[in-house]
Amino acid sequence: MGAVTAVDRHPKQDRSRATRQRLLEAAVACLAEHGWAGSTVTVVAERAGVSRGAAQHHFRTREDLFTAAVEYVAEQRSAALRALFPDGAAARPAVVAALVDLYTGPLFRAALHLWVAAGDEEQLRPRVTELEARIGRETHRAAVDLLGADESRPGVRETVQGLLDMARGLGLANLLTDDTPRRDRVVAQWTVLLDEALG
Amino acid sequence: MGAVTAVDRHPKQDRSRATRQRLLEAAVACLAEHGWAGSTVTVVAERAGVSRGAAQHHFRTREDLFTAAVEYVAEQRSAALRALFPDGAAARPAVVAALVDLYTGPLFRAALHLWVAAGDEEQLRPRVTELEARIGRETHRAAVDLLGADESRPGVRETVQGLLDMARGLGLANLLTDDTPRRDRVVAQWTVLLDEALG
Repeated sequence: MGAVTAVDRHPKQDRSRATRQRLLEAAVACLAEHGWAGSTVTVVAERAGVSRGAAQHHFRTREDLFTAAVEYVAEQRSAALRALFPDGAAARPAVVAALVDLYTGPLFRAALHLWVAAGDEEQLRPRVTELEARIGRETHRAAVDLLGADESRPGVRETVQGLLDMARGLGLANLLTDDTPRRDRVVAQWTVLLDEALG
Repeated sequence: MGAVTAVDRHPKQDRSRATRQRLLEAAVACLAEHGWAGSTVTVVAERAGVSRGAAQHHFRTREDLFTAAVEYVAEQRSAALRALFPDGAAARPAVVAALVDLYTGPLFRAALHLWVAAGDEEQLRPRVTELEARIGRETHRAAVDLLGADESRPGVRETVQGLLDMARGLGLANLLTDDTPRRDRVVAQWTVLLDEALG
């Protein structure tokens, strides 16, 4: 009921927000499927069913649209991860599996395309560098909380970082072929090692 | 002296082999710097100081040139890795550092560009998938030997695989910024965990 009232009260703002979200989600899907070279504002607007003018009202440049899109979807993923474990620290195998999952879906593919493109494009590079650092910090914080890791103990911070590096490498291995069976075995083994290391 | 004699005897084949190598090395450098979109046979031929016709005599298509280039440089890196440890299994910290180094240089950047492009390009995808599987197997074999890992023990195979996945993820983290100080700390800690796991 509350939500309905809010819609009635601010229909215009709500429509604008819904359009923005459609654009962001279409941008990530487009980046994941076609890479940076195949991702333009026009293509995304078409996919989102929004006019090009409306898209440019929300995002002035291509760089604005795609960095905002990766950030938005990363925030959604991060919120979903936290929602999976509402009581905070949880069973390690489930937490590790959920962390690794962050790097195997369309968001990772999209972020990877943006990342690789940023290596070559001067106007994209500083923004993506900053964005990746922010997403990295947030993911690390979530991992520490959910693993119940005590970072005041020596080596614990680096153990968690290494786990996230491994997850990123596993995401890369899943890019061209379905690497699920191998990944599951690697993750099961490293969960044992991680468990011993974190105590 | 023997080498000089060989050159004298087969000057034509040797020139041809040298041209081929120059093309392969230029192709990897080009891919690392400009990505797939900016890497054509013409650009590589120019960089190698070879005529376009000569380049096409060696490599019929763009796909031929770039997959051969990544394979050639991967073989060079693999041979260099083995040459670093002529007696086989060696001190684990040195071996882990050398394995991680495989993923932080221009070869990894080049392979990553080829990998990402293969996700979108149908004629590239099966070749790169096959190439990556072959390079992955060879790297795994070298890692097992140099770490002195006994794969008949349960979990050892997956432990080594996870280490290489972590190395790949660390390479990705090094793409936009120099991640060396953080990487060194993560690698030091994971070497301890690996050492305990491998016994």
